[in-house]
Amino acid sequence: MTKENETKSMSLIVTKGSLDWAYPPFILATTAAAMGFNVTMFFTFYGLGLLKKDLKLNLTTLGNPAMQMPMMGMHMAMPNILSALPGAGALTGAMMKNLLKKKGVASIEELRELAVEADIELIACQMTLDLFEYDVKDMIEGISLGGAATYIEVAAKSDINLFI
Amino acid sequence: MTKENETKSMSLIVTKGSLDWAYPPFILATTAAAMGFNVTMFFTFYGLGLLKKDLKLNLTTLGNPAMQMPMMGMHMAMPNILSALPGAGALTGAMMKNLLKKKGVASIEELRELAVEADIELIACQMTLDLFEYDVKDMIEGISLGGAATYIEVAAKSDINLFI
Amino acid sequence: MTKENETKSMSLIVTKGSLDWAYPPFILATTAAAMGFNVTMFFTFYGLGLLKKDLKLNLTTLGNPAMQMPMMGMHMAMPNILSALPGAGALTGAMMKNLLKKKGVASIEELRELAVEADIELIACQMTLDLFEYDVKDMIEGISLGGAATYIEVAAKSDINLFI
Repeated sequence: MTKENETKSMSLIVTKGSLDWAYPPFILATTAAAMGFNVTMFFTFYGLGLLKKDLKLNLTTLGNPAMQMPMMGMHMAMPNILSALPGAGALTGAMMKNLLKKKGVASIEELRELAVEADIELIACQMTLDLFEYDVKDMIEGISLGGAATYIEVAAKSDINLFI
Repeated sequence: MTKENETKSMSLIVTKGSLDWAYPPFILATTAAAMGFNVTMFFTFYGLGLLKKDLKLNLTTLGNPAMQMPMMGMHMAMPNILSALPGAGALTGAMMKNLLKKKGVASIEELRELAVEADIELIACQMTLDLFEYDVKDMIEGISLGGAATYIEVAAKSDINLFI
Repeated sequence: MTKENETKSMSLIVTKGSLDWAYPPFILATTAAAMGFNVTMFFTFYGLGLLKKDLKLNLTTLGNPAMQMPMMGMHMAMPNILSALPGAGALTGAMMKNLLKKKGVASIEELRELAVEADIELIACQMTLDLFEYDVKDMIEGISLGGAATYIEVAAKSDINLFI
């Protein structure tokens, strides 16, 4: 733990990329930044898609994200967050977005913009980029590339480390 | 890290609310409390339901919890933990509870009571409460309300931080 | 945080056992070990199966792993990682393994061997072992047994703690 008068720090590994699971890392990161923390987000695995310019987020069962699965849509694109609401049935991602908006919850795009403005360090995992054949040109500006070692170095110096 | 003679501390973010995934946070929290740790559990997202007085936990595929999904029951209410047992088939949540009992594993209700008795701090996420339209009167006694900032303040001073 | 000249340490709780989710802990652990960290991996819950000699890993929706589910194969054995690839459809675990190989990514078996050679401490959760009725003879050599208290003691002294 750092001393009271030092700047605190937080590092997050972001591994999930569905609409629902995109919220915890961005809410924690932007809140910590607002509290004066140095924040680093390392996007890897299914979470890497959250850095894409064109963000197409769906609801899933906590599995992977932004993908279209026509055949399996019924089973995979489960609106988890809405199913928890009283009386909620098979709602769509679009309906969830409306609810969040109505409730005054920022969109992932808005939270991500906030993260960039707050100088949160956004690192894309190079290995995942290669594996998924993502193009870095499809990612938002202002990110850097790194590997597991990059993350570990940051985490070893951080006050809070979370794997999300 | 705190010095050897100081009280150690642990903070957990509890984000999942299914029968199987309710175990890790409560086992870790009550064990740490028994070892003399100061423990804080921050219940948010799908995990918030674990603070409800009336706990109806089902098995899921690691997604959301305590919800009834008739149509999707076959696919969503997957008895993960039992499927891992040799020869286990499509068992129900009730059957799992029997197995845990037979094996001498405490129920979530029992572990939660233990957590309250051990003075573990239980914080319900205000934002999730609003979003899911949960009523604080349906929650167990002795919890407090807080937001992401509340959690981050606690975590920055904790020796162990886990996102579950 | 330890001083700069001390050996850093990392502890991981490994709770998931599917082919895709087996990667993050083994990649983080072996990378940290290569950087000179003391690393401990605590295998519990669905992650315990990753210590089995005979590793039969399937793709799932982030739920449990290495289990056969004929009826539900279509829905449960979701090739998440491959679905994220452009144009990917319903690929099998075998096809994923081929892709990883083609991309030069080590297999879980190889990473696990690397972990043993790097003196990473591998602890199997005794309670999960009992619950799932696993036989310790089916597990790889060189592991030790422990409980939640064992993990917590290690974690309280570690610079990086992650729940995976």
